[in-house]
Amino acid sequence: MNAPLLALSRRVRNTPYTSRIEQFPVQAYTVYNHMLLPSRFRGLEEDYWHLRKSVQIWDVACERQVQLKGPDAAKLAQMMTVRDIRKYDVGRGGLVPLCDHNGKLLNDPVVFRIAQDCYWFSISDSDVAFWAGGLALGLGLDVEVSEIDINPLAVQGPQAEDVVAEVFGEAVRAIKFFRFETLNFRGHPLRVSRSGWSAQGGFEILVDDWEIGGLLYDAICETGAKYDIGPGCPNLIERIEAGLMTYGTDITREHTALEAGLEKYCSLDSDIDAIGIDALRKQRARGLPQRIVGFNVGGDRVPGQRDPWPVMANGKKVGQITSITWSPRLEYNVALGMVELEYAPLGTELTLVAPDAERRATICEVPFTGASQR
Amino acid sequence: MNAPLLALSRRVRNTPYTSRIEQFPVQAYTVYNHMLLPSRFRGLEEDYWHLRKSVQIWDVACERQVQLKGPDAAKLAQMMTVRDIRKYDVGRGGLVPLCDHNGKLLNDPVVFRIAQDCYWFSISDSDVAFWAGGLALGLGLDVEVSEIDINPLAVQGPQAEDVVAEVFGEAVRAIKFFRFETLNFRGHPLRVSRSGWSAQGGFEILVDDWEIGGLLYDAICETGAKYDIGPGCPNLIERIEAGLMTYGTDITREHTALEAGLEKYCSLDSDIDAIGIDALRKQRARGLPQRIVGFNVGGDRVPGQRDPWPVMANGKKVGQITSITWSPRLEYNVALGMVELEYAPLGTELTLVAPDAERRATICEVPFTGASQR
Repeated sequence: MNAPLLALSRRVRNTPYTSRIEQFPVQAYTVYNHMLLPSRFRGLEEDYWHLRKSVQIWDVACERQVQLKGPDAAKLAQMMTVRDIRKYDVGRGGLVPLCDHNGKLLNDPVVFRIAQDCYWFSISDSDVAFWAGGLALGLGLDVEVSEIDINPLAVQGPQAEDVVAEVFGEAVRAIKFFRFETLNFRGHPLRVSRSGWSAQGGFEILVDDWEIGGLLYDAICETGAKYDIGPGCPNLIERIEAGLMTYGTDITREHTALEAGLEKYCSLDSDIDAIGIDALRKQRARGLPQRIVGFNVGGDRVPGQRDPWPVMANGKKVGQITSITWSPRLEYNVALGMVELEYAPLGTELTLVAPDAERRATICEVPFTGASQR
Repeated sequence: MNAPLLALSRRVRNTPYTSRIEQFPVQAYTVYNHMLLPSRFRGLEEDYWHLRKSVQIWDVACERQVQLKGPDAAKLAQMMTVRDIRKYDVGRGGLVPLCDHNGKLLNDPVVFRIAQDCYWFSISDSDVAFWAGGLALGLGLDVEVSEIDINPLAVQGPQAEDVVAEVFGEAVRAIKFFRFETLNFRGHPLRVSRSGWSAQGGFEILVDDWEIGGLLYDAICETGAKYDIGPGCPNLIERIEAGLMTYGTDITREHTALEAGLEKYCSLDSDIDAIGIDALRKQRARGLPQRIVGFNVGGDRVPGQRDPWPVMANGKKVGQITSITWSPRLEYNVALGMVELEYAPLGTELTLVAPDAERRATICEVPFTGASQR
């Protein structure tokens, strides 16, 4: 079916930028952390090419910030993630898998240490504040947990640095990946980090004031005009090409952090006190049943996907593709999904049962490169 | 702005009934607990009249069930709610406010005791499994917490009992409000409760199998044909008239259970061990700053609402209306919102600043009755 209408209500929260987004106008939204997230402006491919060649401003207010603050903030933050973050100093961030006691994924946020006794988790689509709050209360920790009213604005694309440097000053050029600096915008200090949900590079600004947010949005658009700035949002084609998995789509509550391909963010050989780390160690020793992989899918442009599509080997289902799209740049279909471990080696040829036809699906490296299989 | 499009993806989960819903077709969805919830079929007023006079089948799979199971299930369930549920026997349910340690609302689910060591919370739009899971782990309780794959189907409206009795047998007529019985559908046992999110009466069937769910959906539609059954969903007009508040819209994470008007579900004088109960006792002693009320709003049909509208007394903001609609039956505008306590007595006349005009807003009883103010 085609996209249906989205009924608007207060429960599906607006952002400080919604009134501006609607002017462009936005073609479609999704809902993420009980909040509006634009999902298309010009069209999927038009948005993709624009993101790759110039610069976009993204309303990612739905990347809600869960704050841990207080004497036990560092202890709770470390308990919540299987990555060793003990050495994170103020201003440093990183991707941190959050697991339950079985090692299964609750979220895959980026955490920043904001102060000695304060951490912000920039969350994917699940109520991490409930998890952290339950733990803090149950463990009797001296830490306050809250979802704070921070509304991130992202600037992404090859010209992002030039635009953000014009707005915040040349200091932005020195910011390293997953680091932030506090910089002034019209006298208001804002945290600016080099991060974002694309592989094109860019910044996220952690806006803590709705009115300043609106003014900043306008200022970025004005400054960016000469760089052909336009509205944008995480783009299906770009993020699959880059191998950026979506929590809730490609990796879910049912997968461990290892199955989700997050092993490089799991400090299994450290001595941290983290929920789920023992389960992950055991799974590593036992061997994984499945893991996420990239697929190069043969044939012409695939139809739009909604439910997962099965992947077969010798007539038996051995996995599924959860994200797939035609890459107009690579001129083949790029996909992400889970397969049983024995089928995960690069080059393995499997069969995808797409709604229109069976297609060859070859396990390949991500980020995606290489030639067409057409 | 008019309703925008909703981009579909796996993260916004389908239900066992989605393919059927789309046939009708559905006009608009909302997203609730990361899942599709239909919000309009024929049109708001047409859906309203149909619900009041005949019977509707509702896809409310988004009422996710959070299961507590194990030796400490009863202990954790009671800790999570400020209502005394110690005497709930198997088959009994009730509305239970879930609060944090400040008495602020995390959710307002209906809980059912499913077995001696098993409870299901039928949740509003927040990840209660994260809260319960964090508490269980932090407190070291012997209980397993999970969001289970139960997909409720509701049958609501004056003819609901006749339809459900034809499908499940006459035993359904004896089921009391907020009680369930396990009844057979084609040899498959299903829990059928007298409950639902309308004031028109009806049942909810806790479907634990996707295929059976589809067959049940079809059987109810077939059986209901002679009662003019049709697809439906929680209806804005009907639920405001009935005084049914929405978590996330009328009552939120920022309100205590008392401010949310849930005092009759708060066992403040009991000796239960419940999170937030002390904070609520203190607030009761201190006096509430605000509470939820109903408003009869004068003038013609109000425009569609999205953000809260301010309510004024003597030029000062003293509250806000969060849900409002024209009642085609009562022929006045019915509304729900919060006001400062001194303005909450019935009959208090305030001024609503609607986007089109200022209007008289009179505090009135809910459920709504009475004559037009036009």
